[in-house]
Amino acid sequence: MINWPIYETKRQFLGRMPKDQDILHTIENFCKTENIEMATFSLIGAVSKVSYGYYDQRLKEYTSFSKEGSYEIVNCTGNVSQLNGSPFVHAHIMVADHLGRTTGGHLFSDTLIFAGEIELKELIGDIQKRENDIETGLKLWT
Amino acid sequence: MINWPIYETKRQFLGRMPKDQDILHTIENFCKTENIEMATFSLIGAVSKVSYGYYDQRLKEYTSFSKEGSYEIVNCTGNVSQLNGSPFVHAHIMVADHLGRTTGGHLFSDTLIFAGEIELKELIGDIQKRENDIETGLKLWT
Amino acid sequence: MINWPIYETKRQFLGRMPKDQDILHTIENFCKTENIEMATFSLIGAVSKVSYGYYDQRLKEYTSFSKEGSYEIVNCTGNVSQLNGSPFVHAHIMVADHLGRTTGGHLFSDTLIFAGEIELKELIGDIQKRENDIETGLKLWT
Repeated sequence: MINWPIYETKRQFLGRMPKDQDILHTIENFCKTENIEMATFSLIGAVSKVSYGYYDQRLKEYTSFSKEGSYEIVNCTGNVSQLNGSPFVHAHIMVADHLGRTTGGHLFSDTLIFAGEIELKELIGDIQKRENDIETGLKLWT
Repeated sequence: MINWPIYETKRQFLGRMPKDQDILHTIENFCKTENIEMATFSLIGAVSKVSYGYYDQRLKEYTSFSKEGSYEIVNCTGNVSQLNGSPFVHAHIMVADHLGRTTGGHLFSDTLIFAGEIELKELIGDIQKRENDIETGLKLWT
Repeated sequence: MINWPIYETKRQFLGRMPKDQDILHTIENFCKTENIEMATFSLIGAVSKVSYGYYDQRLKEYTSFSKEGSYEIVNCTGNVSQLNGSPFVHAHIMVADHLGRTTGGHLFSDTLIFAGEIELKELIGDIQKRENDIETGLKLWT
């Protein structure tokens, strides 16, 4: 039976992402500075470089892609939980090119903001920690 | 004039989706068990099979697609309301393949989780019920 | 150092989007009527016409696309803040066609709802205002 833990909203932030900075590191550093242990977030905007990946469920390994240029962030949704005692971001991103064509996947670092607006919601409750999951080969909540 | 009802957040859940289970049924069953009548949710992760559809607005019918393999869930956003006295999920999904190429549409059942993380927010207020809408041919809130 | 302002949730709305109406204008008019100064929202559904754009970061100009037909709104995420003293929507949209193929970008007006469900969350706190940003050529929060 499913037993998802319950969380209360603590602080909700809405703000502008810093230009030319990496999305993952920006959010992880913000959470460290603000002592945020758990959160969810959503952001839209544009990137000058994007890196995302695909997980091969049979080989149990990620392939990642990286491309430079003007791309709209059509959606980027993710969460912050704990890995090895630090805030860790798990997010997926979709971008659109100059013809509106979309691509996306698991967000990797080296994804650089051109302009962006984030909503980040701090959550209070049982702290989810990522551990190696043998069946999937991923670091999952236990 | 638009008159959208107002809701208060009750319980917020954040948790891991069960491997090899259908997304729609997992969420509907969770809501039945927890007596959740209205909710919104968002999830990211990966599926081993995905089923989604397209609604032809002139013919007033859905076409659905199903494909097996490793796919990232780039985004899956939806809500829970009431249909015939039971919790009913309406969600849309976008997936990415091994080259980052994205496809998506209206989420159908027989979409099987490989790994996933859901945020589900229970809402309290006027219960939205789905009824047949003649103009669109869809089951909409009244 | 990043210093994103903190917001409290005031009213949360969940409702049906009006058929054949433009998404941007519908949300902006609702916010004017309800005296909402800041908000975030998410919507899914279908459109009979969609208009979205791409920002060229070097030329500092938008190109926009518009197409009519049945399209699923796979995701539309955005926020409401203030521009010249009025509620202003910034949103990105992704749509899927009859084969599940997705395209998307920055949401422009003249995007007409066929059917849709929106969750809109009013936020209370420092009011974000959009101003011309010389470095990007965009109207950004200061």
